[in-house]
Amino acid sequence: MPDPTELDRLVVVLVRPRNPLNIGAAARALSNFGVSQLRVVNPYSLAFRDARSAVGASSVMTQAQEYSTLADAVADCALVVGTTAIGQRSLQNPVRRLEPQTALIIRHALQKGRVALLFGSEKTGLSNDDFSFCHWLLHIPTADENISMNLGQAVAVCLFQLAQEEESTPPAEPLKELATNAQSEQITKCLLEALDISGYIKPGTGPMFEKKTRNLILRFGLEAYDAKLILGMLRQILWKLRGKKGSSPED
Amino acid sequence: MPDPTELDRLVVVLVRPRNPLNIGAAARALSNFGVSQLRVVNPYSLAFRDARSAVGASSVMTQAQEYSTLADAVADCALVVGTTAIGQRSLQNPVRRLEPQTALIIRHALQKGRVALLFGSEKTGLSNDDFSFCHWLLHIPTADENISMNLGQAVAVCLFQLAQEEESTPPAEPLKELATNAQSEQITKCLLEALDISGYIKPGTGPMFEKKTRNLILRFGLEAYDAKLILGMLRQILWKLRGKKGSSPED
Repeated sequence: MPDPTELDRLVVVLVRPRNPLNIGAAARALSNFGVSQLRVVNPYSLAFRDARSAVGASSVMTQAQEYSTLADAVADCALVVGTTAIGQRSLQNPVRRLEPQTALIIRHALQKGRVALLFGSEKTGLSNDDFSFCHWLLHIPTADENISMNLGQAVAVCLFQLAQEEESTPPAEPLKELATNAQSEQITKCLLEALDISGYIKPGTGPMFEKKTRNLILRFGLEAYDAKLILGMLRQILWKLRGKKGSSPED
Repeated sequence: MPDPTELDRLVVVLVRPRNPLNIGAAARALSNFGVSQLRVVNPYSLAFRDARSAVGASSVMTQAQEYSTLADAVADCALVVGTTAIGQRSLQNPVRRLEPQTALIIRHALQKGRVALLFGSEKTGLSNDDFSFCHWLLHIPTADENISMNLGQAVAVCLFQLAQEEESTPPAEPLKELATNAQSEQITKCLLEALDISGYIKPGTGPMFEKKTRNLILRFGLEAYDAKLILGMLRQILWKLRGKKGSSPED
């Protein structure tokens, strides 16, 4: 996640939300992505009260501030970005798609001042009047068949993109030792003997089949640990196939 | 959005979901991002019925399929990815962060076969048992203070990232069909029986060993052709181990 002080300056503004579950879901997304300031403009008042008093309401929710006009809600912000389901230019507002490049623009602005990200009501989105307070609009690319996103999900998707690290860091996978070719060869030999005893290898096909099997084992790209495990398994199976009496190779 | 035929092969699997609103929200996210296949494993049955019959339920929701086991739900998938709130390696599963690079890996797999993306129940997430069916795990980076995301929001965030336009071109690898999880599972079952007859499995370790073996096979990342070859080998060895008379399975 980026420098937390950057996202501290982000303000999520819900304009005329109606459903308390959506307000709560939006608050949860803020908390998931380290954003603390939620503002609500002219909510359906019962909804806001319900969401604030809900059992388990997050600190984001209980500290959410209510405004009666959008102008007041964004008065202290240096950049105001409205969200829209329509991917075309609307009125005088340029539209940018939600993508890493756009997130960078917003994060850059956050270094210099407060940024408001506006989400409209569930039913009608932001109005032209609301758009007039916006520097530009943000569009989440969706399938043409269903461009209307749930409010809480739209908030989550936007904050996820804003909070995403700029550079992809190498996967947090421990380096694992790979099997040596000698280990792979031991596996090949055991498997070939087991297949021979079982009658799998047809007469005259031995040398061709040996190459095929060797290559099969190499294609697995085995790690050293797994190679040991498989060899142990095969040796036990071989021991059984040979019908040996006495102790098993595992003992 | 990427080629729609790619996302057609993506299957979102909700494992033991309990809240009909969350199931409906997940379905809505699928529809927003052009994904059509929703599968539900062992849902709280009233929840699933409610979600399916909800007014305005999308076609994704009404066509969602119900399964009683995760094994069945992912049987036809070549890559199975579980989601987890914990960013660390769990059991044998490597963990990747949700980021453009990871989306590319999944989209590349989608060109070769079906990919399942699993989401656990609201309360407990996916179990270790569920993880044993996964090739690797996917982690949405969140703030440390609140790592637990709402189910519908987690689905939306993952699908948004998967549907995002690529900026770089996919690696030029020959396209080879991958083995389905059902094929890997057949191999696991045969190997377990062979090891059992051979006395490799110590008393009382059966269930733990089954998970370990299943995951070992998945780590091979088998191609469909190799999976068939190995299954044929194992069946012949098994036939011999069982000491059957008569014709071999290869005849």
